[in-house]
Amino acid sequence: VGGGEQQEEEGEAVMSAKSIYMVSDGTGWTAEHSVNAALGQFDHCLVDRGCPVNTHLFSGIDDSERLLKIITQAAKEGAMMVYTLADPSMGEAAKKACRIWGVPSTDILGPITEAVASHLGVLPSGVPRGAPGRSSHLTEEYFQRIEAIEFTIKQDDGALPQNLHKADIILAGVSRTGKTPLSTYLAHKGYKVANIPIVMGVGLPKTLFEVDPEKVFGLTINQIVLQTIRRARAKSLGFSDEVRSNYSEMDHVREELEFARKIFANNPSWPVIEVTGKAIEETAAVILRLYHDRKSKCSMPRISKRY
Amino acid sequence: VGGGEQQEEEGEAVMSAKSIYMVSDGTGWTAEHSVNAALGQFDHCLVDRGCPVNTHLFSGIDDSERLLKIITQAAKEGAMMVYTLADPSMGEAAKKACRIWGVPSTDILGPITEAVASHLGVLPSGVPRGAPGRSSHLTEEYFQRIEAIEFTIKQDDGALPQNLHKADIILAGVSRTGKTPLSTYLAHKGYKVANIPIVMGVGLPKTLFEVDPEKVFGLTINQIVLQTIRRARAKSLGFSDEVRSNYSEMDHVREELEFARKIFANNPSWPVIEVTGKAIEETAAVILRLYHDRKSKCSMPRISKRY
Ligand SMILES: Nc1ncnc2c1ncn2[C@@H]1O[C@H](COP(=O)(O)O)[C@@H](O)[C@H]1O
Ligand SMILES: Nc1ncnc2c1ncn2[C@@H]1O[C@H](COP(=O)(O)O)[C@@H](O)[C@H]1O
Ligand SMILES: [Mg+2]
Ligand SMILES: [Mg+2]
Repeated sequence: VGGGEQQEEEGEAVMSAKSIYMVSDGTGWTAEHSVNAALGQFDHCLVDRGCPVNTHLFSGIDDSERLLKIITQAAKEGAMMVYTLADPSMGEAAKKACRIWGVPSTDILGPITEAVASHLGVLPSGVPRGAPGRSSHLTEEYFQRIEAIEFTIKQDDGALPQNLHKADIILAGVSRTGKTPLSTYLAHKGYKVANIPIVMGVGLPKTLFEVDPEKVFGLTINQIVLQTIRRARAKSLGFSDEVRSNYSEMDHVREELEFARKIFANNPSWPVIEVTGKAIEETAAVILRLYHDRKSKCSMPRISKRY
Repeated sequence: VGGGEQQEEEGEAVMSAKSIYMVSDGTGWTAEHSVNAALGQFDHCLVDRGCPVNTHLFSGIDDSERLLKIITQAAKEGAMMVYTLADPSMGEAAKKACRIWGVPSTDILGPITEAVASHLGVLPSGVPRGAPGRSSHLTEEYFQRIEAIEFTIKQDDGALPQNLHKADIILAGVSRTGKTPLSTYLAHKGYKVANIPIVMGVGLPKTLFEVDPEKVFGLTINQIVLQTIRRARAKSLGFSDEVRSNYSEMDHVREELEFARKIFANNPSWPVIEVTGKAIEETAAVILRLYHDRKSKCSMPRISKRY
């Protein structure tokens, strides 16, 4: 259940697993994100547990005492270390201690901060996020993000169709194309999202055809994969056999996808995104690329922001 | 509205802004996350726009033709470049072209991937995420995450208290302590979250006191900051003056926080998290650190995962 299952367990595989220690004076999410991307390069031996890995995330490490304690522990376990430490003296301490203890280490924040510093011609503050006296986060962006998340939750699963004109992005697709997770993911990036289920034989809300069609995206998925996902869901929800067959049997799945395809064909300005085999983040990237491209008409599709 | 406002605009400030190009063969979120962390080190001159920055994210760049087009564009704009490219020949091409064109460049993926490779003694695949033939994402973790998100949305704002025993984490706090955004953020990390509003004079659901108290977290916030946030909200929701004053006036805010404080005092095993001035990610980091610490009783608080 939840993060519980992700916990370290005692067992054979774990014993021989290699450890990666991630240390941050902040949340640790940056280090974790980079490590996850790098681990993607070892899927070929991670999936069959040919090269088992355990990661350990230490967040809020802003004093050298705890830093050194973690490094000596890493040395004992034969772990490697990845760190993001804003205070240069902490970064130096980490580097030096890792060298002394023979812990391979990678600085995630330093190189990119140095590059930005020389590009801007400005010295970095060296102050970790969350340090006393830092700015309060009550920025316009903060409020916009909160509003986007609350809007998106209220609009889940076709609710309140009278609000569709307020959405930045509208997702339409049959059940189990990942509309809800995708919506909340985009909401955390500051977009107000509404999602509309396509159900065979059920009409779509009138307002969907009254809004700017440039903000509507259709989601589609491979029929066999969809059936697999729906079977897993029907089982986990404890559907009766009858409901289950209507929901997840091949004929029904095929017909419903066909029903969606016709709707998309009738609305050719809606881009149709193939979600098969894509992680939530990947589908989100495709949608946002198209969304910004349509808005900005740049020569090369991009997402631009001001700081 | 949404990402729209984050778009590049024509204007004086933008003209003198320095550009950062981010290029990925995947989603680009890893590069964006690292650049955001680095930009945090320049808040002192970003907030007053003393060193304006524009970022441009190019995702799904998996051929050298588009890569070179972006680099020549970066050269024209005097931009710096940050990239994550899994295919070593693409990484090499980026590095070489940047050198030729005089574009300062930082490789985000290469160093960490190399470090992991030599730690594991395994060669990286060199295959970008999303490349044809990659694994299908229909892993247990995928389903767990989807389930967590759907559970969390259904449990928003005190709904379905009979399900509290199914939650991994329960958040309790007065209105505008950020329960909803925090819940969906944690849900995307795979945790089933329920949130319970504390409203003065309103009783809490009985089931809250029947669940494992180790999974309940109280949220608290500075009184003045809370009033500021509530005023902004009351305005944006168009509350009437009467409702508004009840919701956001100082006496009421103080009394409601006092009401919450008493509830927390009566339940001393619930950790109380101060959210004032914290971004959603920061509060999430604090909660997950405590959550995992209580579960694993390690010598040093950490979040561990198996791969
Ligand atoms: N807004 C910010 N201001 C200052 N430093 C930051 C900010 N965001 C992230 N950082 C730093 O970037 C690194 C990664 O942050 P985190 O992802 O929270 O671990 C840490 O060293 C943080 O201190
Ligand atoms: N699951 C994965 N498998 C292989 N490569 C990945 C994976 N996740 C991320 N990457 C690579 O890591 C870099 C950053 O990914 P992204 O955050 O999607 O831009 C890109 O070069 C991706 O190709
Ligand atoms: Mg970090
Ligand atoms: Mg990236």
